[in-house]
Amino acid sequence: MGVLGASGYVGQELLRLLAGHPGASVAFATAETAAGERIEGLELVRADDAPLAAVEVVLSALPHGVSARYVHAARAAGKRVLDLSADFRLSPEAVYGLTELTRTRIADADLVANPGCYPTAALIALIPLAQRGLIDPSREVVIDAASGVTGAGRNPKREFLFGEVAEDYRAYALGNQHRHLPELKATLARESGFTGDLVFTPHLLPVKRGILETIHVPLTRVLDEATALGIYDAAYGDEPCIRVVRGAPPSLKDVVYRNRVALGVAAVANVRRPRLTVIAAIDNLVKGAAGQAVQNLNVMLGLPETAGLAC
Amino acid sequence: MGVLGASGYVGQELLRLLAGHPGASVAFATAETAAGERIEGLELVRADDAPLAAVEVVLSALPHGVSARYVHAARAAGKRVLDLSADFRLSPEAVYGLTELTRTRIADADLVANPGCYPTAALIALIPLAQRGLIDPSREVVIDAASGVTGAGRNPKREFLFGEVAEDYRAYALGNQHRHLPELKATLARESGFTGDLVFTPHLLPVKRGILETIHVPLTRVLDEATALGIYDAAYGDEPCIRVVRGAPPSLKDVVYRNRVALGVAAVANVRRPRLTVIAAIDNLVKGAAGQAVQNLNVMLGLPETAGLAC
Amino acid sequence: MGVLGASGYVGQELLRLLAGHPGASVAFATAETAAGERIEGLELVRADDAPLAAVEVVLSALPHGVSARYVHAARAAGKRVLDLSADFRLSPEAVYGLTELTRTRIADADLVANPGCYPTAALIALIPLAQRGLIDPSREVVIDAASGVTGAGRNPKREFLFGEVAEDYRAYALGNQHRHLPELKATLARESGFTGDLVFTPHLLPVKRGILETIHVPLTRVLDEATALGIYDAAYGDEPCIRVVRGAPPSLKDVVYRNRVALGVAAVANVRRPRLTVIAAIDNLVKGAAGQAVQNLNVMLGLPETAGLAC
Amino acid sequence: MGVLGASGYVGQELLRLLAGHPGASVAFATAETAAGERIEGLELVRADDAPLAAVEVVLSALPHGVSARYVHAARAAGKRVLDLSADFRLSPEAVYGLTELTRTRIADADLVANPGCYPTAALIALIPLAQRGLIDPSREVVIDAASGVTGAGRNPKREFLFGEVAEDYRAYALGNQHRHLPELKATLARESGFTGDLVFTPHLLPVKRGILETIHVPLTRVLDEATALGIYDAAYGDEPCIRVVRGAPPSLKDVVYRNRVALGVAAVANVRRPRLTVIAAIDNLVKGAAGQAVQNLNVMLGLPETAGLAC
Repeated sequence: MGVLGASGYVGQELLRLLAGHPGASVAFATAETAAGERIEGLELVRADDAPLAAVEVVLSALPHGVSARYVHAARAAGKRVLDLSADFRLSPEAVYGLTELTRTRIADADLVANPGCYPTAALIALIPLAQRGLIDPSREVVIDAASGVTGAGRNPKREFLFGEVAEDYRAYALGNQHRHLPELKATLARESGFTGDLVFTPHLLPVKRGILETIHVPLTRVLDEATALGIYDAAYGDEPCIRVVRGAPPSLKDVVYRNRVALGVAAVANVRRPRLTVIAAIDNLVKGAAGQAVQNLNVMLGLPETAGLAC
Repeated sequence: MGVLGASGYVGQELLRLLAGHPGASVAFATAETAAGERIEGLELVRADDAPLAAVEVVLSALPHGVSARYVHAARAAGKRVLDLSADFRLSPEAVYGLTELTRTRIADADLVANPGCYPTAALIALIPLAQRGLIDPSREVVIDAASGVTGAGRNPKREFLFGEVAEDYRAYALGNQHRHLPELKATLARESGFTGDLVFTPHLLPVKRGILETIHVPLTRVLDEATALGIYDAAYGDEPCIRVVRGAPPSLKDVVYRNRVALGVAAVANVRRPRLTVIAAIDNLVKGAAGQAVQNLNVMLGLPETAGLAC
Repeated sequence: MGVLGASGYVGQELLRLLAGHPGASVAFATAETAAGERIEGLELVRADDAPLAAVEVVLSALPHGVSARYVHAARAAGKRVLDLSADFRLSPEAVYGLTELTRTRIADADLVANPGCYPTAALIALIPLAQRGLIDPSREVVIDAASGVTGAGRNPKREFLFGEVAEDYRAYALGNQHRHLPELKATLARESGFTGDLVFTPHLLPVKRGILETIHVPLTRVLDEATALGIYDAAYGDEPCIRVVRGAPPSLKDVVYRNRVALGVAAVANVRRPRLTVIAAIDNLVKGAAGQAVQNLNVMLGLPETAGLAC
Repeated sequence: MGVLGASGYVGQELLRLLAGHPGASVAFATAETAAGERIEGLELVRADDAPLAAVEVVLSALPHGVSARYVHAARAAGKRVLDLSADFRLSPEAVYGLTELTRTRIADADLVANPGCYPTAALIALIPLAQRGLIDPSREVVIDAASGVTGAGRNPKREFLFGEVAEDYRAYALGNQHRHLPELKATLARESGFTGDLVFTPHLLPVKRGILETIHVPLTRVLDEATALGIYDAAYGDEPCIRVVRGAPPSLKDVVYRNRVALGVAAVANVRRPRLTVIAAIDNLVKGAAGQAVQNLNVMLGLPETAGLAC
């Protein structure tokens, strides 16, 4: 396969995972300013010079807005494409690659859109509850998400300097302005039928990797913790990359460097109407990006789904 | 004055602030295992050996559950007391020391209970909205709060080792189990009449200092950001220690090492009913503990309210 | 095999590596206060209850001073033992397990003492220079080493709390007082004949993992960088776990989560006598402890030396 | 006074300190891309538009290479100038502003060059020993220095992103290539007569603020710790901004946010010739830059030397 856009954090993680993959062989990797440098033993070439003919599958970790053009070129050359950018996540051209939900469609797809990091965690947490009619559509689902800094990419911007981020913590894209929200809402509606309101607020954490989402779910009926966990067990008990956690809720250290969604729950006391708090944790670079891409690639190629992945 | 419990993070911050206070003179400071050591030039004595007779005012930064006994002893010796523990925050014996709300009562009080760190930020954010009937009591107010590690105290516990906390982030006391919630609800009801449901979820941040609260407020009517900021301006425009922030919402770096609450707002788009997101940030050791104690001490002694404080 | 002492940072890393090892099967793992808990799918038992009969090889990550007793018991039961503590590193009973230097002796050993983290990096850096007579014995070799906090273990001590370590940096064991120095000097003398003076100063870094050593070497003759790198290439060119780095010197990010020593060099300008600065970096938990133990285990069992390891 | 270059970390710290200074009034502050923004209540103007006529003293925190032109313009306009850049540190035009060493010359100076951060700590540590002939000139003084990231400035560069610096540690400018070394050597020679060799190696720490230097001093005769500390007491006992520390050596937390050099010592055991290790710690933004500038400004204006400073 070939990798477009290999110099950012997601591209680097993709090369690292593919280097340890028993059934993958990377024929080319591209970068622009870093062209000529070597990563994982491979000399980077410019995207316009990518030898598409050498591969059957192209993975693109190019930036949003840039990726679409190269994806179309690869498709025109007859290649199957897995796009990690946001460019095709809302497009009917592509299969949405949330592996646990859509793997049968991924297997035959020519173009797979890898999900956004924030939607991956939220969808895995919400869909089983929504499919069972447990989320009260008359009250808002509130999602507070916190992400490590690699989620913002590797381009040098002052706001992401160590001197600005260390010992700080801040919310951004307040008021439902984050570009992942339409992806989250559309997918949730398509997969579960739920169309109630969501309030999504991302935050920037002073860590390198990891996303933790604290998801406040208004319920249509009382759920104690055992019942809620049982619902997740029923939905995901056979999934190698989803862990339903009893006891202390999952934290970032349970998921970093792994292709895993960890889920925990708590019933909310001292409120008049039933509510559940769900904690969903992922590594933004692995299950939130490069790892899920490898998982989808495995499905596309008919390989064992977790080949090359630590779940 | 005298300081009980000077070896923890709050006690140390208190001594540091009092050392730079133009009108304060610390006659004694206590510690147990650290008795005999010196902080800010003062030799620590054991709490049972504190020379109460030497002072007019006693400040206690002793642990919750331990403080009450020493506070009662100091009161019995005729001393005015400012207690930073949780022991008197819900007690009718004490005036609740949220300075901006209760300063007239603090001025004459013999016993002041310094507020908890989480309630300080939440109350400053919610009371002006609640007093004006703007919070919809039929929907829950959701508060996601994140705190630096000094909020957990200085006793050695494995879960607070650097090796456990760095690069991690986690929720705790899920499901409305945090001991600050009754203080928050009772004070909110007393000061504003609001008795709707709250959902409060604290998180542990890999930073030393600071609390950021993301407060999701269901509204009784639409508020645009300018109107919301105008309400806070009306409530706090003359307050030296409260900053109403336009533009990018406040983050920890705007408040650490300062006795300040910083507030920012955003109207929520793409929801059917009106909602406001409020960001409130404080330094947990300053406005959330030792700094507000000094502010209250200044009120008790008739000194300028911000003497010795950077707001 | 069996693992004694699995609840500390080194023990956990050992279990993590063995869980991903193609040729290893862990029959038991021990812990004291954590007995009964599960790590990597294994229920922890107390060390005194370890079923030694079930295994051929015992790995001990017990604390220094505690390990010796259990190692002797395992040897008395006829087991081959790999000890990660300091208890046998200076003992003639054991083979010193610096794999690249002593692998032929390790292959047949019944007791292998895994090296300390600081000596591992320093010895790999110094031995090729010392063997060639390039280090001037009339001037001191100065080694400033900086380690991540996991090197201090997982027992709760105030000095290792996040609130103490974050944003701090400090030297410790100043004046050649560190307990790794005798191990370093004795091994250097045995493997190279060098008996000149060393000055070793460790520092505590606010990171979880990694050791970087800045090694100041007085030379008997001028070495430019190409020549110095050529010496390391000659010594380690075929070693899978040692990287000789051209250009920017290695940093922690080049080695963490890998079983690797990375080496870089610089000739020192503007001094009257020839000097070389060598940078040596390792992950203290991997090549500095659990990873090198797996490497040695592979040698003991006749497996490929890097089985289960990312070098 | 006026401040040239107020948008970097040093410029911001300078404005913060001057805002709390009882005898200072800032008439203007300049920035280029941030012109029009406000810091500490002051609207930033472009350096070419600075109203020099309004002030008696100009402080420049402009970048090295840029500052000289504006300093000359201010001098031509008859202003006294305090330059925080490196542009005049080796120039006979300026008095070198290491306050404790040169305060009598600073008092009357029209142009003061504020020292570099690394030389400040090293010179305070070395000069008393060198002046007494205690440093053996036939062996090299080895200085390993580690600095927080704000020392690298606030311009966005990839290598200083949080994602690159967190959990990392690295040496740079290896082999005596750092531009502070000539400043250090020239000043040491001028103030003490010492002209022996120095080996200076800086490192980048994952912290915001602070420099710790581990200084390895070859001695002409044995010094025990008490004697060494006595020498520093004799040199600095009356200095408000220098702390000679007994017991555990100073660390960053002892100096950050303070205008202080903290010094500790250890005699080196198990070496054939006498050696002393000296630890010197400062806050690179305070005593290493803006704080020392305020200290020098106080001297220039005949104010109390520590006005506006926490030492």
